[in-house]
Amino acid sequence: MKSLVILGVTGSIGTSTLDIVRRHPDRYRVVAMAAGRDVEGLAALAREFRPAFAAVGDPSAASDLAERLSGTGIVSGAGEGAVVDAALHPADLVIGAIVGTAGVRPTYAAVAAGRRVALANKECLVCAGEAFMSAAARAGTEVLPLDSEHNAIHQALGRHTAAEIERMTLTASGGPFRSWSAERIAAATRAEALAHPNWAMGAKVTIDSASLMNKGLELIEARHLFDVPADRLDVLVHPQSIVHGLVSFADGSVTAGLAVPDMRVPIAHCLAHPERIVSGARSLDLAAVARLEFEEPDLVRFPALRLAREALAAGGMMPAVLNAANEIAVADFLAGRCSFGEIPVAVERVLEKFSHRTDPGEDVEARLALDGEVRRVANEMRAPAFS
Amino acid sequence: MKSLVILGVTGSIGTSTLDIVRRHPDRYRVVAMAAGRDVEGLAALAREFRPAFAAVGDPSAASDLAERLSGTGIVSGAGEGAVVDAALHPADLVIGAIVGTAGVRPTYAAVAAGRRVALANKECLVCAGEAFMSAAARAGTEVLPLDSEHNAIHQALGRHTAAEIERMTLTASGGPFRSWSAERIAAATRAEALAHPNWAMGAKVTIDSASLMNKGLELIEARHLFDVPADRLDVLVHPQSIVHGLVSFADGSVTAGLAVPDMRVPIAHCLAHPERIVSGARSLDLAAVARLEFEEPDLVRFPALRLAREALAAGGMMPAVLNAANEIAVADFLAGRCSFGEIPVAVERVLEKFSHRTDPGEDVEARLALDGEVRRVANEMRAPAFS
Repeated sequence: MKSLVILGVTGSIGTSTLDIVRRHPDRYRVVAMAAGRDVEGLAALAREFRPAFAAVGDPSAASDLAERLSGTGIVSGAGEGAVVDAALHPADLVIGAIVGTAGVRPTYAAVAAGRRVALANKECLVCAGEAFMSAAARAGTEVLPLDSEHNAIHQALGRHTAAEIERMTLTASGGPFRSWSAERIAAATRAEALAHPNWAMGAKVTIDSASLMNKGLELIEARHLFDVPADRLDVLVHPQSIVHGLVSFADGSVTAGLAVPDMRVPIAHCLAHPERIVSGARSLDLAAVARLEFEEPDLVRFPALRLAREALAAGGMMPAVLNAANEIAVADFLAGRCSFGEIPVAVERVLEKFSHRTDPGEDVEARLALDGEVRRVANEMRAPAFS
Repeated sequence: MKSLVILGVTGSIGTSTLDIVRRHPDRYRVVAMAAGRDVEGLAALAREFRPAFAAVGDPSAASDLAERLSGTGIVSGAGEGAVVDAALHPADLVIGAIVGTAGVRPTYAAVAAGRRVALANKECLVCAGEAFMSAAARAGTEVLPLDSEHNAIHQALGRHTAAEIERMTLTASGGPFRSWSAERIAAATRAEALAHPNWAMGAKVTIDSASLMNKGLELIEARHLFDVPADRLDVLVHPQSIVHGLVSFADGSVTAGLAVPDMRVPIAHCLAHPERIVSGARSLDLAAVARLEFEEPDLVRFPALRLAREALAAGGMMPAVLNAANEIAVADFLAGRCSFGEIPVAVERVLEKFSHRTDPGEDVEARLALDGEVRRVANEMRAPAFS
């Protein structure tokens, strides 16, 4: 029986995790859970799975959550401190699936305390990858990748380490604009950008998939997760989203991780690792898929990927700057304040501005402060036409 | 510095192995080599690589080989005993690349003596897989697969064993007749059957690739190499020959081994395992390949694969019967004594005949005796029209 803490329990990764837990009540027990603002959803899941502790990030929701859980014996808490408490609840595995920078402190706390973490939160690695992975190494614990691409690579590596490989390749579906002209992409509507061909995800990550910024952020994650140099990391566009990641060896061998696009596959892999359990996902039938296609990404039509590669190569604080600037620009696009083509333009302006600043340091608090500062600057720099 | 014995040194696997050894003179030293009949080729390679011992299978070639090596200090021998002596020469790795049943005794001797063997000879596993793998287990040694498909699966398994997987899939290019009608296949000429789209191999294995018998024999090999039940083994037709093998797990994850079709990839993998070395093969560029296609094999148009699956399911001596009957039928086809369509018909008649016999037992000598008996019967059963 493995005990689980689920951070971000009401989100897409959280609910997929619980879908698997429901299939294996004899194997997994949820001992703590946390959500950001969805008190109703959190309370319903807590009533079903009966953790010892449930936390909501929104501090104003404290009494609402307590009332909804009254009589259950489940201890509740609210605010960031309560989410950190949930992260530190004794458990065999912490699912780190809080979206955004809100996930950084709780997930970092779990890793620093030596918890094994299955990581879906991007910001832990993009904003504070050095500190996060150092903390895991110091605590002697393992970070398992929950993203389908990184999970596929983890599986493709097998008994090898990244130091033994020549190249590591993440695939990208190419998103809804894969075959569009640069002009048409620049003028894409919100609805067009939200129409992802293969994956159902939140709005922010769907927009990032359309711009290929998401793949750029994943390269930065891979850099830290696997300790692989930036110049060994590649992206390959693969519209079918069946091959998720590949590693190449000096002898010409390539191993790859494949699966139908269903997040339950990597989640089940992390839950059971190194064993295997049924996930509920369909088996891959390659004869039915019939054809897998691959092409180089186009950095001209998808400048967000170029910016991410530049931030990855620059290292230091630049990935954190990229991420925060992109969040503001995507929020502007989703709110109708800028065009799709203006997203990378805005991000590049912020990157340029910060390229002259001194890196405030690798530690988590310094990077979170930087994140806030970048958002402030990005909002100030917003072109008058955008607001 | 690893010491190597190369059995079948003048063949395609042997010369590819030496191509890699030439690239890494600081890593590998050939201490013994053996060939079947090509005394001239063997002597030239012995003069270049300076093994301590060189053996030729043909006993009548003893003095010819000795003369060609005179003054080199290389000890030579001839006949099956000499080839077994080469196999037993102290070494870190034995390359078992003798073609046909001639490879069984020497390779078995190496495994039984506890040598690590990189295995390309099919007959060791198809005819005597139980005895061969038991001998390896008793001697506590490892059998590394040199076939590209089994090598890809070995790599795709990573830290897993076959007991942990749901399915194991070998790919087949589909050969030159992949899209031909049954009628056209049945009437195919020798030249048509020898025109393999992706691999340059010997005539026998090229014909077997055209009939898909080769893939059937590989299923039987996989059964023994990985100790995986027959009903978990699959074939998938994949015309580009880039994905060579796949393993599927309960959670929906699939890992796959890929490479350009170049035997130096699996050979280099075996030579360096668990490290990696440069093989000389091109790196795989999936964007340049652009498209990978997959389809179910057609057991109606390719009855040889059906027969092999049946022999695999029956187990016992039937795979050995299949293999010997097929050798005779393919030799008949190559000699113009039967049509391509008559190959599986002849094999099925022999299988039917032997299905009523008692299994003579699993040991290597019993299986080699059976092999001889099947060849005799197959020759006798040859339809008058064939001879």
